[in-house]
Amino acid sequence: MKRIAVLASGSGTNLQAIIDAVDDGTITGAQVTLVISDREDAFALERARNHNIPTMFFNRKNYAGREEFDGAIIAALQAQQIDLVILAGYMRLITPDFVAAFPQRILNIHPSLLPAFPGTQGVADALAYGVKVTGCTVHFVDEGMDTGPIILQEAIPVNDHDTRETLHQRIQVLEHKLYPQAIKLWLEGRLKIEGRRCLIDDN
Amino acid sequence: MKRIAVLASGSGTNLQAIIDAVDDGTITGAQVTLVISDREDAFALERARNHNIPTMFFNRKNYAGREEFDGAIIAALQAQQIDLVILAGYMRLITPDFVAAFPQRILNIHPSLLPAFPGTQGVADALAYGVKVTGCTVHFVDEGMDTGPIILQEAIPVNDHDTRETLHQRIQVLEHKLYPQAIKLWLEGRLKIEGRRCLIDDN
Repeated sequence: MKRIAVLASGSGTNLQAIIDAVDDGTITGAQVTLVISDREDAFALERARNHNIPTMFFNRKNYAGREEFDGAIIAALQAQQIDLVILAGYMRLITPDFVAAFPQRILNIHPSLLPAFPGTQGVADALAYGVKVTGCTVHFVDEGMDTGPIILQEAIPVNDHDTRETLHQRIQVLEHKLYPQAIKLWLEGRLKIEGRRCLIDDN
Repeated sequence: MKRIAVLASGSGTNLQAIIDAVDDGTITGAQVTLVISDREDAFALERARNHNIPTMFFNRKNYAGREEFDGAIIAALQAQQIDLVILAGYMRLITPDFVAAFPQRILNIHPSLLPAFPGTQGVADALAYGVKVTGCTVHFVDEGMDTGPIILQEAIPVNDHDTRETLHQRIQVLEHKLYPQAIKLWLEGRLKIEGRRCLIDDN
């Protein structure tokens, strides 16, 4: 049984989608065994407690710097023998040490078709630019901001009447489908990185 | 009857798609009345001659600089009372004077989902980056490189076994559909630019 940790700063809708995918058998051979947040009031923690999943809150103010903060999280993940780290609305850039501690074992989801519109405002930036197509991206995490090899992407049209809210809502529907799919592929050992490309082995 | 000029440097498959769209009535109220190339041997010129469309070849070597070269093309377009300028595989960046002479009357097509992968290697760059989704973009031309307001975009998946050739081929199929659609919207006066966004009026 592989052990998944989810890091979330917000409401945790992707966490919920992953928990549901484990419950309904979309994801097999793994369990979410830890949910970590950098915000004590993150609703993601509440969701975890509702499913009897252990939670941890790390307060950035208790640590001198990013290295120390991430060091504490790495130690917790290692103590819990976590196999796969899932960033799900986790609003911090993780340190190179964190990436190195879990090589090709950290995934992130982003609400745009990367490399377009990286950063914290992917939906608003796409809307402001005036694209007609956007989407979401699941990728391996590397040292950069939203730059790691791409596992899955899916596109949706932007409508003339879209607001940031309506567009984000439609992208989230995609996210909740795509993230469990990507996790499933990872668990099945079907992701093969060649240079910048992430190829998917046929079964 | 609106008068369309097409500028092309290469084989002119988009030119052909536009000629066909006029012939089959997809595009109405307009004719391609001039095809211009910066390469004497561009097959686009041959396609134009096959349809009895007047052609002009402008040799960059005969002009001191970009301004003079584009100046001659602008003069030709104005002499022919061209309403709409279509860049179709035209491999030169046009000057600000050219843009200013035909405000919101110059369109371009690009083989990626802009703003991702601008420039001359849109297909190869997307493949090298490892995206799972790419596509094509029809946009108004402004002073930048592939930066003008986006009229239409459509996405296609990138397959693991895609080469630059197979991917480009599938994108071209999209281009030949999308470019006539965008021209039709322009001719119907349905494109409204608001800031960076290009909105499409319902009929």
